Order: sequence, then structure tokens, then C-alpha cells
Amino acid sequence: MRPLMSNSRLIYDCPDTNADLYYATHFEAPDAVLFLEHKGKKYLVLSDLELERGKKESSVDRVLSLGAFIEKAKKRGQKGVIGVIDTLLKDFKIKKLSVPQSTGFTLVDALRKKGYAVEAGDHPFYPERALKTPKEKKWMQEAQKTVFKAMAKAEKILRESKIVKGALKWRGKILTSERLRFEIENFLLQEGYHTIMQPIVSCGLQATDPHCLGSGPLKAHQSIIVDIFPKNDKTKFFGDATRTFCKGKASPELKKMYAAVKTAQETAIKKIRAGINGKIIHQAIVDAFKKAGFQTGTIDGAKQGFIHGTGHGIGLEVHEEPVRIAARDFILKAGHVVTVEPGLYYRKIGGVRLEDIVCVTKKGREPFPTYPKKLEIL
Amino acid sequence: MRPLMSNSRLIYDCPDTNADLYYATHFEAPDAVLFLEHKGKKYLVLSDLELERGKKESSVDRVLSLGAFIEKAKKRGQKGVIGVIDTLLKDFKIKKLSVPQSTGFTLVDALRKKGYAVEAGDHPFYPERALKTPKEKKWMQEAQKTVFKAMAKAEKILRESKIVKGALKWRGKILTSERLRFEIENFLLQEGYHTIMQPIVSCGLQATDPHCLGSGPLKAHQSIIVDIFPKNDKTKFFGDATRTFCKGKASPELKKMYAAVKTAQETAIKKIRAGINGKIIHQAIVDAFKKAGFQTGTIDGAKQGFIHGTGHGIGLEVHEEPVRIAARDFILKAGHVVTVEPGLYYRKIGGVRLEDIVCVTKKGREPFPTYPKKLEIL
Repeated sequence: MRPLMSNSRLIYDCPDTNADLYYATHFEAPDAVLFLEHKGKKYLVLSDLELERGKKESSVDRVLSLGAFIEKAKKRGQKGVIGVIDTLLKDFKIKKLSVPQSTGFTLVDALRKKGYAVEAGDHPFYPERALKTPKEKKWMQEAQKTVFKAMAKAEKILRESKIVKGALKWRGKILTSERLRFEIENFLLQEGYHTIMQPIVSCGLQATDPHCLGSGPLKAHQSIIVDIFPKNDKTKFFGDATRTFCKGKASPELKKMYAAVKTAQETAIKKIRAGINGKIIHQAIVDAFKKAGFQTGTIDGAKQGFIHGTGHGIGLEVHEEPVRIAARDFILKAGHVVTVEPGLYYRKIGGVRLEDIVCVTKKGREPFPTYPKKLEIL
Repeated sequence: MRPLMSNSRLIYDCPDTNADLYYATHFEAPDAVLFLEHKGKKYLVLSDLELERGKKESSVDRVLSLGAFIEKAKKRGQKGVIGVIDTLLKDFKIKKLSVPQSTGFTLVDALRKKGYAVEAGDHPFYPERALKTPKEKKWMQEAQKTVFKAMAKAEKILRESKIVKGALKWRGKILTSERLRFEIENFLLQEGYHTIMQPIVSCGLQATDPHCLGSGPLKAHQSIIVDIFPKNDKTKFFGDATRTFCKGKASPELKKMYAAVKTAQETAIKKIRAGINGKIIHQAIVDAFKKAGFQTGTIDGAKQGFIHGTGHGIGLEVHEEPVRIAARDFILKAGHVVTVEPGLYYRKIGGVRLEDIVCVTKKGREPFPTYPKKLEIL
């Protein structure tokens, strides 16, 4: 972590979508609020509508009245967000401040015009957010446990389905990606989770595109990727896991692919410990796939093989920086919580991805909930 | 709309959270993508992972390969997002460009350092987004119809509930805000809608805070605010409506408040037409409340009365700029779709809010789905 020039940090954004702001305040709001951290103390500037709730629910040291600052700004002949921020900074005698790199440039331009030295903060703005506390780890384990309960539900539906002319029938109806996704989401809702992004339930050719949500009837004897990443309503932490199933017998090629991905994931997980470079883990998977005969590259005009990274940081965001286990250098630290999700995608065979969450410790990994890995549902 | 200096517009953001980017591309993606509009043609720069899907699903004129631009940038000794954008702009011989006001200042600083003239675009970046097309209006009407189906479901549950010692019992259990919210969300999920923000189901003192989500047992003889604003999975457009109920007999004060809000909403809706200033509509409600004896101001140390705006624009975002029907000047235009949602909040009586969506036309309003307004459920 590089030292900060200033001892004042300012965020103007929505706590519901800015994970750093939520992390700093534990305050939920759908609209933009003003946050200041100065000399180690935290302040929220809230409208009359939010003032009382802010005092009750937020974790900041003091909640200030936006209305009062608007009045004060008006007396100085200023208005708007800039007028309020200027008034706030003058009150605190702040001339230098750091803001998130994502801060809108028109806001920063206006502050600089008023003579403030505005510098870019770290990304994430609170880098310590990447290193999970015991309480946060517990919340993430709970989330992951629920993800696997949802996975079990999906597997049960596939097990209960009958194969009819290559399609799947469940409770008298053709089973679609949409239906299976609904059953997963409905279960998560009951458990107090929301799917900010919908779960992936993709089959056949669709499953060879890792970002395809999946739609239409699920097919027998083809790989079905189920990727679930919901957010807990209360803790705001995400879980994230993927399993690949095949209803009915799988082809020998698909079985071989599944075995390769399973071995690759085990290899990667075993390598995880504080101090290792994520690049080395990623390269080990690339090499293992190559050795097993699974090439990555452009085939028939489309990228096929192992076409994404091995993992990413996760927490208050589902893809959380700075952690990436991929082709770039990144040293893992104790307290990082990351996904490990190798996959193989070939248009002629299908897609296979297996994903678990791992918490990095000094010597290796901390136990996290997991779920059996078995391709065929007969 | 002020004229743009440049004929090039650039966005680097996530289509799933940036409504302007989705509007311009009709492309869904959870991670940041690069978008360029130049001389009336639209381009998306996508990674290998998204390339094929982009060609199939997006509405842009051409999808370009991010991989190819990374290679090209590398040959020029450049890397990262800035390297790619610089290479792209050089290819198109662009020196001046406009970007959304929310664009991160570090990105803009870096582009300016490379000699580009970067100006702030309109807000919203595509101002025409505020004026809904016939197709978009149809989508919003569909969304609103579904919101009211969910409202009917909530009302039915309240109707079926029994009053037991001041609490409500439904299907043998104490009815809570959480349970009623779950039933609403579960219904919406089935209908192909997601609640990006959860519905409000708040009762008693909680209902006097318009942003309080509500929790715990619902009570008889107190106002219950139900505010539902889900997003359609396919069209991405929002619906938004609020009703206030009271299970069992309401107090005369609550009834009087409800009648005042109902009349205020009718008055406001009748005033809506192209050319009117939203401020006039808002002031008419403020005056009507005052005349009916409902003061707004600080009472017992907390803001009470009519403590929020009358309405807001809605579309691909639930709160959509530039439209606000509030204390500030804003002229309504034909094609604006806005909420009309006056409310009164008194700690000693409760909260009442009624909300419908209205589409502005030259002469008045276009019909939009609505739902009966009746306080007591006996």
C-alpha cells in the first residue's frame, strides 16, 4: 500500500453500488451520499430523509445534515454538490484530499478549479477490504453454504427429470434453463439472498460461451453449467460456485474434459498459499490442460479451450479487485478470499467449469464449504 | 440539448449498470467494455470472451476485437485501458471526444495527458433516453401492469390475514414485512422481473421513514406502505408503484391523511402536460397539504409532513435524470414518463404514500395501468 499524500478521503456515490462506501459506512442507500474521512474519523452528510436512519444504522463517527450545508453554501453564494463539498472541506480546513479513481471527472475538475489538490486513492479505495476479517470469512462461508444448497436443489431437479426424445421433462413440462434458474433464484430468495446478476444455467453450445446466461430447453447427454453467485441481504457478501452436470450418459470426450478440469482445479487449490504469484497457479493450469491434450487458441474462427482466468477476489463485490489469478502478476496474501474456477470450452464437445471459493492463509488454505463434483446424473 | 463540440462519444463502463451504455448498445455484460460512437456509427470493443455474443446480441454497427487492439497497443509500446483507447482513437483519427460526466477522473486525466480534448457529455449521456418511444412506453406499461399484479397479491395476503392481539396472522404464522416482501418478490421472479432494490413493506413508525425497507411483524390498525419497483429481465425497463393499506379499522387521523394524499395525487396528475414546470405541480401539492392542515417541517426534532419530491423520471433506471417533479425548475416534455407519488409522514399517525406512473403528452397524459386506492382492508 502506497502512503497517502493527504489524510482526508472523500466519496460521493451510492452506498448500494459502491462497495468501498458501504465498507466505510455500513449504510445502505440507493442515491448518492457524501462521505468524508478526516484524521481517522468518518462522517456522512445526509439529507433530512436519511438523517435519522443514518444515525441509527451507519457505523460512521458522525452524521451531518446536508440541509445545513446547503444553507451554509447558499450564504456563501454557492450551490449544488460542488457548493456543499466546498463548504464541507472549508469547515474542516481541508485543502488536499484523495478520492476513488472512479470519481466523475466533472466533479474533480470543479474541485481543482476551486484550488483543491485532488489525488487518486487506491483501488479499491479501502485496500484492506481485500483481506477478510474472521467475521467476514464467516459471512462468506455462510453465503457459500447457501450457494451449494441451491446447487443441490438444481441437481435434484435434474435427477428427477426424465429424458424424453433428448429433452428433459420435469413435473410434466420440458425443463428449460429459465425454469431451472427460477427454481434456484426462488430458493435463494427464501434464504435471504438476491441475485444481483442471474445464475448461469447454460447447456450445449451455449455452455461454450462462459458469459452466456442460457435459455431454452436443456438437453440430455450434454454438459449443463450451473454458476450461482448471490448476495446476502443482510451481510452484503457474495457466494460464488459452479458445477457442471450431464443428464444421462456423457460422451467419452466430455468425460475426459471434466476429469481434466477437476484435476486442474485440485492442482490450483493445492498451490494456494500466502506469498505465491497467481500467475504461477494460472500457468500450472494452462500447462496441465496442454499436457492432457486440451489446446487453447482460435479453432474454426473462435477462441476455444481455457479462455478465461483461473479466479478472482470476492467479497462485497462478486468480482473484487485487486485479486486476479490470471496471466498477470499478483501475489496472494493471507486473508484474500478468491474463486478457483478453471474451465474448458469446445464447440464440438461442450463447456465444463468447476468453481469453489478458497481463503488464503499463511500456510495454505482455510476450509470453505464445498460440494461433490460428479458429471453424470443417471 | 446543447450542441456537442465533438462528433465522437466514448464510454468505458459496464453495460449492466450504465443505462446509457445499454441504451446505445443493447448489450448485456457485467464487466467494463469500451464503446465508441463516431460520425453516427456505433462500435463495441470486446474481449474474445464476449466477441461472438456481441456480434449476435448487440445493436451496434460493428464489434471490434479487444485482443487485436491490445496487440496493436503493445507494438506501440502501450498497455492497459489507456493504451487500448489511445490506439482506438488514433485509428479513427479522433482528437476531440465527449464522455459521460461520471467517467473516472484518472482515465480522463490520462487521455488529456496524451493530448486529447475530453469534454463532458450531457447527463444523461443520451438525453433522448428521457423521451420514450412507443415501444418503450409499451414495455413500461407491461412492467407497471406486473407491479400491480404483485400489489394485488400483497393486498390479498393482508385480506386473508387475521388480526390476533394487534398482530396479523397469515397461514398460521405472524405476518412480517419480510414475509410479505418475499411473497411479492417471489411472484415477480415468476413473471420475469428482478428487484434490483427490494420492495418496501413498512408499517407503523417505520413507514414514517420513506426509505426504510421495513422489518418485523406487521400491525393491525396502522398504515402499511407497499412500494414495488422491479426491472423486466428482457426489456430492462422498470415499473414503480406504491399503495398504502391498513389492516382493520384506521384512526380518523390516518383516514384524513390518506384522503389528503389521494386528492393531492389526483390534483398533480391532472396538471401534467407538456410545457408545465414540475415546480408548479410540486408547489400545488405543498399548498394543498397545508390547506388540509398537514404542515411540513421539523416536529419534535425530526422532519415530518411532505418530506420528499412529487416524482421522478423512470425508464432503464428507477430514478432517471433529468426529470424531477420537485422544488427545482423542470419543464415536462411529451414522451417523459414520470412517477407521481405524494406522501405524508407523521410519527404519531404513520406514513401514507400513493404512487402511479404517468406518461406526458402534448395535451395531458397517456393512459397507464393503475390500481384502486383504498386504505382499509376490513
